[in-house]
Amino acid sequence: MAKSKFEYVRDFEADDTCLPHCWVVVRLDGRNFHRFAEKHNFAKPNDSRALQLMTKCAQTVMEELEDIVIAYGQSDEYSFVFRRKSNWFKRRASKFMTLVASQFASSYVFYWRDYFEDQPLLYPPGFDGRVVLYPSNQTLKDYLSWRQADCKWHSVTVQVKLPNLYINATDLIQGHINNLYNTVFWALVQQSGLTPVQAQERLKGTLAGDKNEILFSQFHINYNDEPQMYRKGTVLVWQKVDEVRTQEVRLPVEMEGQRMTVTRTRTRPVPLHSDLIGDAFWKEHPDILSGEN
Amino acid sequence: MAKSKFEYVRDFEADDTCLPHCWVVVRLDGRNFHRFAEKHNFAKPNDSRALQLMTKCAQTVMEELEDIVIAYGQSDEYSFVFRRKSNWFKRRASKFMTLVASQFASSYVFYWRDYFEDQPLLYPPGFDGRVVLYPSNQTLKDYLSWRQADCKWHSVTVQVKLPNLYINATDLIQGHINNLYNTVFWALVQQSGLTPVQAQERLKGTLAGDKNEILFSQFHINYNDEPQMYRKGTVLVWQKVDEVRTQEVRLPVEMEGQRMTVTRTRTRPVPLHSDLIGDAFWKEHPDILSGEN
Amino acid sequence: MAKSKFEYVRDFEADDTCLPHCWVVVRLDGRNFHRFAEKHNFAKPNDSRALQLMTKCAQTVMEELEDIVIAYGQSDEYSFVFRRKSNWFKRRASKFMTLVASQFASSYVFYWRDYFEDQPLLYPPGFDGRVVLYPSNQTLKDYLSWRQADCKWHSVTVQVKLPNLYINATDLIQGHINNLYNTVFWALVQQSGLTPVQAQERLKGTLAGDKNEILFSQFHINYNDEPQMYRKGTVLVWQKVDEVRTQEVRLPVEMEGQRMTVTRTRTRPVPLHSDLIGDAFWKEHPDILSGEN
Amino acid sequence: MAKSKFEYVRDFEADDTCLPHCWVVVRLDGRNFHRFAEKHNFAKPNDSRALQLMTKCAQTVMEELEDIVIAYGQSDEYSFVFRRKSNWFKRRASKFMTLVASQFASSYVFYWRDYFEDQPLLYPPGFDGRVVLYPSNQTLKDYLSWRQADCKWHSVTVQVKLPNLYINATDLIQGHINNLYNTVFWALVQQSGLTPVQAQERLKGTLAGDKNEILFSQFHINYNDEPQMYRKGTVLVWQKVDEVRTQEVRLPVEMEGQRMTVTRTRTRPVPLHSDLIGDAFWKEHPDILSGEN
Repeated sequence: MAKSKFEYVRDFEADDTCLPHCWVVVRLDGRNFHRFAEKHNFAKPNDSRALQLMTKCAQTVMEELEDIVIAYGQSDEYSFVFRRKSNWFKRRASKFMTLVASQFASSYVFYWRDYFEDQPLLYPPGFDGRVVLYPSNQTLKDYLSWRQADCKWHSVTVQVKLPNLYINATDLIQGHINNLYNTVFWALVQQSGLTPVQAQERLKGTLAGDKNEILFSQFHINYNDEPQMYRKGTVLVWQKVDEVRTQEVRLPVEMEGQRMTVTRTRTRPVPLHSDLIGDAFWKEHPDILSGEN
Repeated sequence: MAKSKFEYVRDFEADDTCLPHCWVVVRLDGRNFHRFAEKHNFAKPNDSRALQLMTKCAQTVMEELEDIVIAYGQSDEYSFVFRRKSNWFKRRASKFMTLVASQFASSYVFYWRDYFEDQPLLYPPGFDGRVVLYPSNQTLKDYLSWRQADCKWHSVTVQVKLPNLYINATDLIQGHINNLYNTVFWALVQQSGLTPVQAQERLKGTLAGDKNEILFSQFHINYNDEPQMYRKGTVLVWQKVDEVRTQEVRLPVEMEGQRMTVTRTRTRPVPLHSDLIGDAFWKEHPDILSGEN
Repeated sequence: MAKSKFEYVRDFEADDTCLPHCWVVVRLDGRNFHRFAEKHNFAKPNDSRALQLMTKCAQTVMEELEDIVIAYGQSDEYSFVFRRKSNWFKRRASKFMTLVASQFASSYVFYWRDYFEDQPLLYPPGFDGRVVLYPSNQTLKDYLSWRQADCKWHSVTVQVKLPNLYINATDLIQGHINNLYNTVFWALVQQSGLTPVQAQERLKGTLAGDKNEILFSQFHINYNDEPQMYRKGTVLVWQKVDEVRTQEVRLPVEMEGQRMTVTRTRTRPVPLHSDLIGDAFWKEHPDILSGEN
Repeated sequence: MAKSKFEYVRDFEADDTCLPHCWVVVRLDGRNFHRFAEKHNFAKPNDSRALQLMTKCAQTVMEELEDIVIAYGQSDEYSFVFRRKSNWFKRRASKFMTLVASQFASSYVFYWRDYFEDQPLLYPPGFDGRVVLYPSNQTLKDYLSWRQADCKWHSVTVQVKLPNLYINATDLIQGHINNLYNTVFWALVQQSGLTPVQAQERLKGTLAGDKNEILFSQFHINYNDEPQMYRKGTVLVWQKVDEVRTQEVRLPVEMEGQRMTVTRTRTRPVPLHSDLIGDAFWKEHPDILSGEN
């Protein structure tokens, strides 16, 4: 077709290329999540299901999009850092932020049921996003520290404002066993790639000691560190993990009906609850800020 | 809390206020929808379920967000026009585009099942978006004409390239009755606010004539105009509609088990398949471009 | 030459194209002109030499650059309006503002001596500039009205604050004759293209009535309107003017030593002291905002 | 005054703050300088008067504006680097570029006569400018290397294209003595703050050896390096210089008519013709890129 006479309107699109060699950060925030949390009966001050779902969505974003080297989330927000030298979609800011926002939002609905079994999703939520550029490693680290400092502060404020939270804190201690179950269950699902049903089966009949053992040996998680998620938020970094899959395979007659477990190593976005303020984390993960990125 | 020493990183956020008094257009496009259509067995060249779902998402965006005066969609894209004088989120471009993108994407998953009954959603889709400003009514109309001209062109190209589409065209005629059913069914759901189950019940036992009658009397739709959706795409404008709701009410014993139908008038985004090229549409809807907006 | 390995740094240049179909306004302001005025003994509250020089520089900018349709100045500021559809330097904002700023500044020094005969220029002045876009005729007119309202306001404030200005006002009346001379002198120079020496010669021996006659017949200026420049500022618009040049020509012996006056019509930026607030001006000059621009 | 009803037009000004912690580079280019050079009889391929005048203007820019740490020029262009952490005019790009452009342009006319004694300036020149951000020391150094590589390339091209330049080269050698005179003359004016008249007097009667001695002892210039300016362009950096001023002072009768020379130390922008490509220059001037800037 000949170009239409309306074609000239394309010229009204502004160029929004991100300055090269800068870290590109996209931060998302839930829209009206105070109301959303009320309507969906979120536990206060932290709902582990909601936090885990946020992290699942962030992992999906990292796997579906390109060039994200680290992500950090807490409460109803998540920040994604694209590598300095990314040339994804020619570094157009609008592409970065809308693809992150839409992928995160569609994942939130898609995976809702895996995290909120008994709580139906009442309406599709919205997320707003923005792009911010950081020209140096120091400013990027300070950005992430800023978000994490904000996380601690939320907790403190909430405790000061709402005395009945101490009761919730007690509940948490009493709810320890459930929490341990949840922790290992989600580790199996999020890090080993099991479906929720497979994970459930795996844990059937295990005792607390068994679960701690699985956590430590397979995922290097010390359960005592767990409530960290509430205090530190969640950092997602790419790590090699052993992915365990249980497969139906064609077997000799005498073994019929059995399944085989297959393990392979993949690089996936793994959740940590580390302290980003200070140097320790960055020394342990020198590749994130390396010149290659 | 005292401001943290990291607070300075906020200054790196750039201002992206849209020039005042311009029409703000957000256009979304499905990411990798060619592959998405394959995986989900979309009918070719047009899958009415997919188009209807897109329109349902666009309606949700118009109702959940503010200041959108008109939207236009075709294929896997949708454009939303915010009023010239909108001051929503202080006209920040990033807010406009990420809220549209995320609301559309979460709605796509949320409403999927209503449109694709037998086809499960395999993975959460992404959408990219952009903001474009149009300083005058003429340039805005030309923008919408450009998108609609593109729509026609798609159809033409496809027919030229793929001769077997004539067969599909025939199929469409043979499939007329199903299509009529779909048309009235979706009118009841999208415009009258019935749930799919309620709509199904309403249509139980109706003949073609009945359906045409419902379409025409209740929705002012002439079914012969229907394939317009494929040729013209879909325009969403705010219109007063009679919303029919069937309610369980407490009734006298002898009427027990019966339900009552309640009608009320609301302003909702109504789908049209009008021609935007030329003046007729704009003369019929003078309020859209009026000075108030 | 092969591209150097440093060539990649070009990619750091951001695109700053002005939105099409908008009026592009460049406004200049003198840098530290309070001090500049002190050092150069400007008359207060208005120094007509300084105002005339500003206008001469603005005329130069309009003639040397392209697509400027109107300019407005008062005090130490000047605004230039490029036509809506200008594609000069592909509408790059940085080009518009730096070319206006540098041309204005170099002209200021270049023409200084023509306006400040007895006052040497002590140092080269600076001007800051900015680009602002206006999407409609109404917003552009309101912009110019805003600057002109600001002008009046300056005058009023100054009078209220400094009672001794009434003395200056009296001086102005006493200085009327000089001012009349100046007015017709500058009209000859700025509008008819005479050099200052030629203009001086032309006025030698003329009386007040003669000067008023020249002003009115040749330049359509009613001298009584003159102090308008102080109250209204100066508008520059393109108008046809009769350019009078006195040339030495080879003549028959008996006419030797005489000179010939040549007149030709040219389109030049002509200073007016009109009211931009209200419709009268725009009705008189319909071409400025016409669709062609 | 109450805010006028036109005040709303201020909201149309876009924010153009430069990303913090980035080097802000403003590059100027002469507008139509090919024609300008023709009209003003510039020597080819390099006119030392023109290059010296450019450098004088750049020095003025560095002294009148704030936060410029280094500048580099060649041919009809000059680049100015503002320090990373500059907060001058809140880092507004339009302020940076228009103040540089206007100060440079007004200086060009103001100082013209000091460099082009016998060549009147025919019309006021224009300069276009742009702002480019560099987020790291490496990208800034590569930018300056890019400009300097471009400088060498110009020379080479010119020689290849115009064989008669070899004659000019010979002229240069024959013109050596004049050039030596010029070199020491301009050093006295530009670095020691003498007026051209004072510098002329200082050199009256000196021989080549004397001039070389002044250059070397007072300005650390080895004259053999001089043609560097043509090959390397000019770098301006802040350095402590001894400023020599000759003053009329009241003296005892028997010394009447004599003058006294006063020396004081100041920090001024000093021209070098160093190689910016490679590390040597940056090691010699570690303060330029230091964290403080």
